[in-house]
This record gives sequence, structure tokens and C-alpha cells, in this order.
Amino acid sequence: MLSTTPRTTLNRGRQRARTDRDDLYAVLDAGLICHLGVVVGGSPMVVPTGYGRIGDTLYIHGSTGAASLRAGRSGGEVCVTVTHLDGIVLARSVFHHSVNYRSAMIYGVPRIVDDPEEHLAGLRAITEQLAPGQWAATRPPTRKELAATAVLALSLEEASVKVRQGPPVDDEEDYALPVWAGVLPLRTTWGDPEPDPAMTADVEVPPHIASRTITIR
Amino acid sequence: MLSTTPRTTLNRGRQRARTDRDDLYAVLDAGLICHLGVVVGGSPMVVPTGYGRIGDTLYIHGSTGAASLRAGRSGGEVCVTVTHLDGIVLARSVFHHSVNYRSAMIYGVPRIVDDPEEHLAGLRAITEQLAPGQWAATRPPTRKELAATAVLALSLEEASVKVRQGPPVDDEEDYALPVWAGVLPLRTTWGDPEPDPAMTADVEVPPHIASRTITIR
Repeated sequence: MLSTTPRTTLNRGRQRARTDRDDLYAVLDAGLICHLGVVVGGSPMVVPTGYGRIGDTLYIHGSTGAASLRAGRSGGEVCVTVTHLDGIVLARSVFHHSVNYRSAMIYGVPRIVDDPEEHLAGLRAITEQLAPGQWAATRPPTRKELAATAVLALSLEEASVKVRQGPPVDDEEDYALPVWAGVLPLRTTWGDPEPDPAMTADVEVPPHIASRTITIR
Repeated sequence: MLSTTPRTTLNRGRQRARTDRDDLYAVLDAGLICHLGVVVGGSPMVVPTGYGRIGDTLYIHGSTGAASLRAGRSGGEVCVTVTHLDGIVLARSVFHHSVNYRSAMIYGVPRIVDDPEEHLAGLRAITEQLAPGQWAATRPPTRKELAATAVLALSLEEASVKVRQGPPVDDEEDYALPVWAGVLPLRTTWGDPEPDPAMTADVEVPPHIASRTITIR
């Protein structure tokens, strides 16, 4: 079960709330980037960034110099939101237009990862989330690179999940209107891998990358 | 030219910064949803939501009861971020993995739209951003529906744009590694329109919807 703090208990669109922890994992695991919200000088700052999940911990990373990471490390709360836009809901009235989506919001005070083993595991999770198989296939980080990369751990304790799917919900009297109604689905697909022109050796696209391009997220 | 306040003048990844106002318009106009950041009780809150642009004003909307909108209306600053993820950058080292993207961040104190004409224009811009052609094709909002929908206007004065494209940038000595490097492009495409099973009349998919499905964003 997910948490039931006031801000993760949905008041609006209550029928869209999911309360199962597996729903949270599903939304997070299907994502590539999140939007990280921090407060800097009293103002919100929302930055897109990578993330990874191990169990009930979300890892985010960044240069030790980045303002968003500094804010996230200073003991303040952050909000991490992952959103999948699945379609545009075309209703019979302007008012009932909507989108189909899956989204997760996580609140918490992130912990700075000091332990070298967890630091590495967090980076691995972040890398594998974006690029599965690449951790083992490419040059591992040096000590200098590790030192330049801060990793923050955020507990998935306080989280909410919202999902909207299906056709529009129109006002009763509007169903008779001669207006096309339905959903225009959105799909995210992979294009063909584009080799780096600077590649010196004649290297084939490895299976862990090639196999990905035939899947649809 | 875009603004040059300290927080919109990029320190990190300076080579990715775009300073032209047209770059901002391009990122915003190509998007479907934004991530709206507000501060609620000292904590950040990041919610995905629709938006629309008219000139140098961004419009967002929501139920008059939504917490994010209440926060946005209370005179506090907001941050609106629009992100397009264009590909995964697969480098020869874990450290240089990255993503290709276009993103825009806008900071400001939103103005509550009171003027009925601007209120309607803002809603129209938000609707047309998600679903071009639908404003004219569907039942217009009633007075009651308009009253239930708050519209906020955010000036595009303070904004920044970041774009990363192209192959990975690896360390000099890594280019000799026998590792496949390049970009795995991401594409967002429209699926076939899915008619609402509740549609009573036999209505064809109108051209403004059908024509959209053959384009790639």
C-alpha cells in the first residue's frame, strides 16, 4: 500500500488514484526521466533528470556543482514526478477534454549517499534505467568521476500514483452531439540506433541496444 | 533574446544554452504538457498539466479547488518546465552517458486571469495546444464551466532553454575502446484514433484529428 499522508491522498480526481505499491513501481520502472522539484531561495525549481530505483529507494544524481542538487542536499524536501502521457482525450465538450496518463509523485528529504558501495549501486541503477545493459558494456567510472557525481537517495515512502485511461466522460446531454469523441493515443518508440561518426573500430550494435528498438514503451 | 537573470543564465552545460526567444517558442509550441512547480507549505510540488501560449504569455489552468492552482494563485512564484526527450546518448564510458533533449524553464509569479475575454482566450490556447481544432469542433464552455476553471497567466520574461543533440562526447582516450557509441533516438508518434464506444451517431474521424496521426512530433 502507498502512503496516506494528506498530500498523497488525492482529493481531486479521486477515482484516478492508485494505492498499490506495484502501481508506483510500474510507473517508475517504465520511465526514462523524472522532473525533480526543489525549493531554491523560496522559489520552486523544476529540472528534468535521470533516476533509478532499487527496492523502495529512488536514486537521482548530478554534478556536485548543480544548483538543483545543492538544494536537494541541503536538507530540504524535494518532489519527484514521473509522467507518462498516453493519449489525448477528445471529448464532445471543450470542458471535458483531458489526457490519458500515468504519473507518480514522491515527496521526501533526500539522503546524501556517502557509502561507496551504495553510491556505485545508485549510479548503476540510474544508468540502467536510461540504458539497460550499458553499465557492463562500457568503461566503469573512475574514482575522479565518482567524486564529481553526487548521488541522492529518496525513500519511496510518501508517494502517490494517478492513472487516467479510457474514453472521455462527457455530460449526459452531450452524448447526442454529432461530434467525434475518443482517444488519440500517444506512443513513444525507439528510432534506429545512430552510430557516433567518431567511432574508430568497426563495432556492431550490441544485442542489448538492438533488441530495445523493436519494443514500444 | 531571453532573460539573463542569474538563475536563467546557465552555469552548467553552458554550451547547451539557447538564448534566442524563438528557441523558447519552439520548445513550448512542440510540447503537450508541462511540469508545474509550486511551493506548498515550504515544500516543492511538481504536477503535470496542460498549457498554452499566446505571444509572450503562458497560460495554465485547473480546477479552482486544486492545491497546485491555489498555490500558484497565492502570489508565490512558480516554475514551469517543458521537456522533450529526443534520445539516449550511449557513450564509451558510464560517466559520459547522457540524453538528447530540448527543455524550457520559465520562472515567474503568475497572474490570475479575471478578464472574461482573456480567460476564454487562455482556455482556448490550452485546449488547442493539446488538441488543435477541437475548440471550434466541440461544445463551447458554459458559464458554469468557465467559473469552475481558474486560468493563470505567466509571463515568458524570465526563461531559459537548454538543448542537447548529437553523439556522445567521450574522453579522448576512450575513443579507441571497442565499444558501440551513438544515439538511440526516441520518437513520439500518434496511434490510430480510438473512437469512444459510447458514440451514438456514426461520425467520421474529422480531418483535424486524422491528419495529426500521420505526423511525428
